[in-house]
Amino acid sequence: MNKSFQKIRNLTPAQAIAGYYFAAISISFILLRLPGVHQQGVEIPLIDTLFTAISAVSVTGLTVINISETYTVFGIVLIMFILQLGGIGIMSIGTFFWLLLGKRIGLRERQLIMVDHNQLSMSGVVKLIRNIISILLLIELVGAVILTLYFMQYYDTFSEALLQGVFASVTATTNGGFDITGASLVPYFNDYFVQVITMLLIILGAIGFPVLIELKEFISNKDKTFRFSLFTKITVSMFGILLAVGTLGILALESFKAFKGLSWHETLFAAIFHSVSSRSGGLVTFDITQFDEATNVFMSVLMFIGASPSSAGGGIRTTTLAIAILFLINFARSKNTIQIFSREIQLIDVFRSYAVIILATGMVIVSTMILFITEPEASAIEIIFEITSAFGTCGMSLGITDDLSSVGKFTIMVLMFIGRVGLISFLFTIGGKPDPTKFHYPKERVIIG
Amino acid sequence: MNKSFQKIRNLTPAQAIAGYYFAAISISFILLRLPGVHQQGVEIPLIDTLFTAISAVSVTGLTVINISETYTVFGIVLIMFILQLGGIGIMSIGTFFWLLLGKRIGLRERQLIMVDHNQLSMSGVVKLIRNIISILLLIELVGAVILTLYFMQYYDTFSEALLQGVFASVTATTNGGFDITGASLVPYFNDYFVQVITMLLIILGAIGFPVLIELKEFISNKDKTFRFSLFTKITVSMFGILLAVGTLGILALESFKAFKGLSWHETLFAAIFHSVSSRSGGLVTFDITQFDEATNVFMSVLMFIGASPSSAGGGIRTTTLAIAILFLINFARSKNTIQIFSREIQLIDVFRSYAVIILATGMVIVSTMILFITEPEASAIEIIFEITSAFGTCGMSLGITDDLSSVGKFTIMVLMFIGRVGLISFLFTIGGKPDPTKFHYPKERVIIG
Ligand SMILES: [K+]
Ligand SMILES: [K+]
Repeated sequence: MNKSFQKIRNLTPAQAIAGYYFAAISISFILLRLPGVHQQGVEIPLIDTLFTAISAVSVTGLTVINISETYTVFGIVLIMFILQLGGIGIMSIGTFFWLLLGKRIGLRERQLIMVDHNQLSMSGVVKLIRNIISILLLIELVGAVILTLYFMQYYDTFSEALLQGVFASVTATTNGGFDITGASLVPYFNDYFVQVITMLLIILGAIGFPVLIELKEFISNKDKTFRFSLFTKITVSMFGILLAVGTLGILALESFKAFKGLSWHETLFAAIFHSVSSRSGGLVTFDITQFDEATNVFMSVLMFIGASPSSAGGGIRTTTLAIAILFLINFARSKNTIQIFSREIQLIDVFRSYAVIILATGMVIVSTMILFITEPEASAIEIIFEITSAFGTCGMSLGITDDLSSVGKFTIMVLMFIGRVGLISFLFTIGGKPDPTKFHYPKERVIIG
Repeated sequence: MNKSFQKIRNLTPAQAIAGYYFAAISISFILLRLPGVHQQGVEIPLIDTLFTAISAVSVTGLTVINISETYTVFGIVLIMFILQLGGIGIMSIGTFFWLLLGKRIGLRERQLIMVDHNQLSMSGVVKLIRNIISILLLIELVGAVILTLYFMQYYDTFSEALLQGVFASVTATTNGGFDITGASLVPYFNDYFVQVITMLLIILGAIGFPVLIELKEFISNKDKTFRFSLFTKITVSMFGILLAVGTLGILALESFKAFKGLSWHETLFAAIFHSVSSRSGGLVTFDITQFDEATNVFMSVLMFIGASPSSAGGGIRTTTLAIAILFLINFARSKNTIQIFSREIQLIDVFRSYAVIILATGMVIVSTMILFITEPEASAIEIIFEITSAFGTCGMSLGITDDLSSVGKFTIMVLMFIGRVGLISFLFTIGGKPDPTKFHYPKERVIIG
């Protein structure tokens, strides 16, 4: 007993993170097999329950089953709970319980949280976790109240409007991508109010907790010396650029194709919504299988990039792309430092971004090759879209999820898991103990590119 | 006059390289408009001549016209000459002429050659150039003699066999990708002798000049202390790995699809040949439009990687990929140095590989988006294949080249040009003068991936 506790103590923070997520998936799996979870007469295979559990914990939203036709209200409430575990982060939940129990947070626990949200300063972690939970629950609550009241016009009973409103708020804020309408947000294609609220919630969930916390401090205006961190400046800028590029790209590719015959405002909203959703939200207002293959490839690239670190989103993350681009510009100019927003980027962060990009690209290529072989019925584009959607924990699909073979399902599950854990944590988990170089070989140059 | 000479002197080596290639394309364009070049009654638009000139100088082999139906024997001889310019490198040809004229090679000229083939040691450049030209002409000569004699069984006259044999040897060795059969090597699908000779020539052209020179020194066994360079070890290993992965991948994807009904040796040779050709050769023995879309995507990845630096091939190059992978492994192990083959990789080469990968990926994505918009008739996969084939100066096509719009043709031309010049040279050309940092901002960490 004491020995196994000792073993846990010896895990690296990154290994512990992966272990916690693994535990959350196991618990979610058991919860989703409880009696009363499934509607009468519905039976689903164990692998599909596992798929749903991983999809919910990783807040991806890819599903092999139809949620509204499979689960009871009890089951749907459980899924919302699991989305909270994934969206807000098991680490912060765990810490929250430590706080509730009156225990002081130890160094080891601080370290765990530090890696999970990649926070780099050790101080203020406790405050941070409290902030994360309170801010996100507040956002979800406001969203749920607005949507429930608004949904009264759509649904006959208050309880039905409440269920729909709460679920819509939770799935948007946690970037969960699940739906209980049976058709994502397609029924609200002409309801711009629902779309605007949903987009706001998705962005708040995907922009990164540190941004929300700094925004709160900025608005409260207590600290006169307050300035936004470099992280916030970079991620918000990149997030905005990606939203703009996504919207313009979808407009250019679909205005005269899938959007032909739509009014200008329908076209504009459809383009903006799917650009926002491709960051990691995963909800759709339009039958995206009607999009051109070119648009599918374009959205695959957007999903691969994903959202901010320390958010409910996945992908390589906005900051990784930003640093890669900044590095390239400075390299071409033969500059030996990368400067942005009057700050200097550190070498270790350049290395991290390189590692994330190589590993992510390699994983996506290998997974794509696996599905190319195991899913002969699916088209190449459908597979590429599914893979990037899983890795970006986005959850949009061209409809092949429920036809996947067992190997295909396992591949997607692994991608969703790694996409949520984050590549840096994953890398240090598989990388094992640090192995410092003991001696040096002579250096020798190599011809590159 | 003196002033413009001064201007040329002030160019950076990288800018001069790009300038020389630009000049070679202009000369090739003029040559291909000479009287007697086109067959009687054939007229082709100027943009198509430009396309052919760039395709030949960059030894890509994508064509908007059918060579054997467009050009006279004189025209075909000119194309072979242009392939030499591109394949062996304008820099070495230029230096060769300097040597012929009895002039001593100056520092500036050495620098030019250094960057073109990315050679890092200044000494022995003159010897290097002599070696490049003599080795490659020797390889081409041997190939031409063997193929001409062998082709006597296929063609009625010696002069026809000679033309076919010489052209086949030149296009294979320079990795030119052009053909005068009108159907690449499809007529030789069952002739394994032609295929083996062609594959050997392609590999010799794509493995990198330094490898050939070291191999020659190793075989001649004059220097008892000789050892293969780190570059040679890395690029040959990676080249071999890519050939094996390519062959296995094509076998896995097509054995029961496009290759269904073929004998085991036909299947094996088809897989090996297209794996070799995807390094940069560009010739095919099989109608690749019959391949599955999954295989097209797989081959696109292979073409994007490309061949060795300092070779007739393009792409991001083998060493770039090798260093990226080595970097990733060492990063995961928290090692602070990258060691391979008892040598240490330098930081600048890690940076170079990162810059090449980011720039190449960005260029391919942007070009793909352009063609998605300008080529509504082509499928997404056909466009991705065409783009990576141009960037890798490979020259395989799913058949959309001659249907491209003008914007599409220009995009492909730019990619072929940059693919041949090489991204490092291109980067320093557009990057302008070095701009060293004058003062430092405070450093600040950012959350990555
Ligand atoms: K999602
Ligand atoms: K080629």
